[in-house]
Amino acid sequence: MRIVHKYGGTSVGSLDRIRATAKLIQADLARGNEIAVVVSAMSGETNRLIAMANDIDGEAPAREMDALVSTGEQVSAALLAMELNRLGIVAYSYSGSQAGFRTDSSHARARITGVQSEHLIRHMDVGEVPVVTGFQGSDEHGNITTLGRGGSDTSAVALAIAVKADICDIYTDVNGIYTTDPRIVPQAAKLQEISYEEMLEFASLGAKVLQTRSVELAMRFNMPIHLRSSFEDMTGTIVNGEDTGMERAEITGVAYHRDEAKVTIQGIPDQPGIAARIFGPVADAGINVDVIVQNVSEQGFTDMTFTVPRNDYATTMVLLQGLCSEMKAEKVKGDDTVAKVSIIGVGMRSHAGVACKMFDVLSHENINIQMITTSEIKITVVLEEKYIELAVRALHSAFGLDADA
Amino acid sequence: MRIVHKYGGTSVGSLDRIRATAKLIQADLARGNEIAVVVSAMSGETNRLIAMANDIDGEAPAREMDALVSTGEQVSAALLAMELNRLGIVAYSYSGSQAGFRTDSSHARARITGVQSEHLIRHMDVGEVPVVTGFQGSDEHGNITTLGRGGSDTSAVALAIAVKADICDIYTDVNGIYTTDPRIVPQAAKLQEISYEEMLEFASLGAKVLQTRSVELAMRFNMPIHLRSSFEDMTGTIVNGEDTGMERAEITGVAYHRDEAKVTIQGIPDQPGIAARIFGPVADAGINVDVIVQNVSEQGFTDMTFTVPRNDYATTMVLLQGLCSEMKAEKVKGDDTVAKVSIIGVGMRSHAGVACKMFDVLSHENINIQMITTSEIKITVVLEEKYIELAVRALHSAFGLDADA
Repeated sequence: MRIVHKYGGTSVGSLDRIRATAKLIQADLARGNEIAVVVSAMSGETNRLIAMANDIDGEAPAREMDALVSTGEQVSAALLAMELNRLGIVAYSYSGSQAGFRTDSSHARARITGVQSEHLIRHMDVGEVPVVTGFQGSDEHGNITTLGRGGSDTSAVALAIAVKADICDIYTDVNGIYTTDPRIVPQAAKLQEISYEEMLEFASLGAKVLQTRSVELAMRFNMPIHLRSSFEDMTGTIVNGEDTGMERAEITGVAYHRDEAKVTIQGIPDQPGIAARIFGPVADAGINVDVIVQNVSEQGFTDMTFTVPRNDYATTMVLLQGLCSEMKAEKVKGDDTVAKVSIIGVGMRSHAGVACKMFDVLSHENINIQMITTSEIKITVVLEEKYIELAVRALHSAFGLDADA
Repeated sequence: MRIVHKYGGTSVGSLDRIRATAKLIQADLARGNEIAVVVSAMSGETNRLIAMANDIDGEAPAREMDALVSTGEQVSAALLAMELNRLGIVAYSYSGSQAGFRTDSSHARARITGVQSEHLIRHMDVGEVPVVTGFQGSDEHGNITTLGRGGSDTSAVALAIAVKADICDIYTDVNGIYTTDPRIVPQAAKLQEISYEEMLEFASLGAKVLQTRSVELAMRFNMPIHLRSSFEDMTGTIVNGEDTGMERAEITGVAYHRDEAKVTIQGIPDQPGIAARIFGPVADAGINVDVIVQNVSEQGFTDMTFTVPRNDYATTMVLLQGLCSEMKAEKVKGDDTVAKVSIIGVGMRSHAGVACKMFDVLSHENINIQMITTSEIKITVVLEEKYIELAVRALHSAFGLDADA
C-alpha cells in the first residue's frame, strides 16, 4: 500500500518522540508499504516563534509571519529525516514549497491550489521516504504561505490525494474517535469507522482531533483517513465514505459543547429583513452565531433567539440592546449558562423517530429542552449546562452505545 | 548610493538588537541610500540547531543539516523585516533560495555559482528593503545548501556584486581593523583603509572579523567593504583595492599568532621528492602546515623544519617519527612553545629594507628569530612564544604605527 503518515506536534515534540516516530515509520516500511510523511512543528515551537513576532509588532505583516513560523516544520522535518537515515532508511526533508505545495497568496490562511509531487512519488517508488513540512506551501511568486492553525492535517490529505495514496494515516495523541467523551461516560466505545459527514459534525462540535478542512478535502476525493495514536501501535478510527447501512446503529455518537450562551430579542415588529438587521451587525463584530430559532409571528410581533460562544455573550448583549431600541423591539433577554448536546449519525437518515426518542429520553430525566435544531445526520438541543453530563449519559445508553450494552 | 548591509549574529542576537539594527537601516535610508540587507542567524541559534542534530546522529546527512540550520537565518530575516515594517519601511524577507542564490551541491560548504537578484533590485529601486538570509542558497535541484561557517560575509559581498552596489557595509561587534591588537599595544590605531591583500594576510593570521572567502570575492570584483560596528554609528575600516602609494607607511599593521609548534626532521638523505614524502602524509592527516624552511643540503643530507598548529603537535611528532625511520633520516625534534609575528603592508613593496629593519628591531630586544618567511606584502618570523608581546610592541613602535607617534 502507499500511505501518507502525518505526525502532529506532540509526535515530534522532543528528540525522543522523533526517535519513536521514526520507529513507527520503519515498522510500516517493513510491512512493505510505500510511505511519505507530513510533520507539524515540534510542540511549543510555533508559539515560541509567534511570541517573538508579537514582541516586535502585534500586527506584523502576514507574509513575514508565514516566513517566520514556517521554519518550525522545517526543523522537525529535517530532524526526522536525520533519524530515519540513522536507522538506515533513505529519507529527504522537503519544505512545503520544495515539496510542490502551491497555494493562493492569502498569507496565514492560504488555500492549496495543487501539489506537484512527481519527485516525491519517485522517492516512494524506490522505498525512500520524503518528509514534508505540513501547514505550508508557496504562492505563484515563490512567497512562503501557511494554511492556518491545524493546516498540517490538510497538507497530509492533499499529499495523499496527489501521490494517489491508499490511505492517509493521521498519528496524534488520541487513539481514535469515541461514541462520546469517555470522561463523562466510561462506557464510551472507540468507533472502528466513521463517515466523513459524521466526522465533520463531530469536528464542528469541538472534537479537535481533525481539522474540518482536511475532512472536507478527504470527502471530496474519497481519501480514507486513519486516525490513530502515535503512542501505541493499534488500529484507530477509519474516516471514510463507506455507509454500509445494514445493521448500522441509529446514531454513531453523542457530542456536547459547553460554554454557550443564549440571547433573545422579544417583541420585534415583524417585517421583512429583520434577520439581516440583527445578524449583519453580529457578524460584523466577528461573533459566530449557531442555533437560531425564530418564533412564529403573533399579532405582528416576533421573537428571535440564538446561541453565541459564551466569551462573546457580553458583547452580544450590548450590541442587541442598541438594535432593540433601533428596531423598536420590546426587550432583550439572555442566559449564559446553557450548553449544547447533539446526537450524530448517518443511520438516523433511515431510522424514523430518532428525534422523538431523543426528546423522550431527556424528558424522562426531567431535562427541559430550550432550543432544537436538526440536520440530516444530527440533532442538537440547547439545555441548561448543569444537565450536560446527565443528558450525555442518558442518550449514550438509550441509543445502545454503551460498550458493555 | 546603493549599499548592502550585512549584520552578524550579535547584531540580531536579541529582539532589542534587532530593533537597534533596524534603526541603523532606517538612518541609512534617510540619507537617501538604497539598501539590501543580509543577516546571520541570531547568535546561539545555529549552535542550538546543531546540538539537536548531533543528539539525533553525530553524522547526519549534510543535506538535512543544511535544511535544518538554514532556518536560523530565516527566523532573524523575518523578524528584522517585521521591525522595519513597524518603522514604516516596506521590507520583505527572502531565504537564500528565494533571493536567487544558486550554488553547487556541496552541502555545508557550497560555492555560489550566481545570484539572480533582479527582483531584489526592483525593491531597492523604489526604496523597499529586501532582507536576505546569509550563509545559504539552493542548488540546481532546489535543495537548500549552506556556505559553511561565516558564509554570511560571502553572501553579502556576492549580493553587493549582483545588485551592483557601491559598497558592502559589514556590521559587526568590532569597529574596524587595527594596526595591531590593542590588548597588547594600547597605542594601536584604527585603520581608515586597508587593501584586499593586506586584509587577506590579516585574516589568515587569525583576525576573525571577515571570512577570507568574502575578501577574495570582493577583491576579484573590486567591491569595497566597509567593516564597521553595529553598536556605534562611526566610520570603521574600508577594505578596497586602492593603493594610494604616496605617503603610504612602510607597513600597515603587526599581526601575531600564538599556539604554534615547530618540528624538524634532521639529516634526511637528500634526494628528489623528499618534500612530497613528508608533506603528503601530513596533509592526509588533515594537518595544516604553515612556515616551511629547508636547509641547504650539506654532504648529501638536509633538514626540513615547519610549523603546525599546536593542537596538532603530538600527532605530527608521531607521524614524523615513522617517516624518519622510513626515510632513514637522523632524528626528529620539536618545540611547542613558539609563535608567529608578522608585519604586513602593501607599502613594503616600494620600501627597501623593511625586512632588515624588522630583524634589527627584534635583535635590539635580544629576541632570537627561529624561522623567517616572506611574501610580497608580509614578513613572518617564528620566535619563542614568551617574546610575543615585546616583539609586537617593539615593531609597532619602530614602524611608526603608535597612534600618538
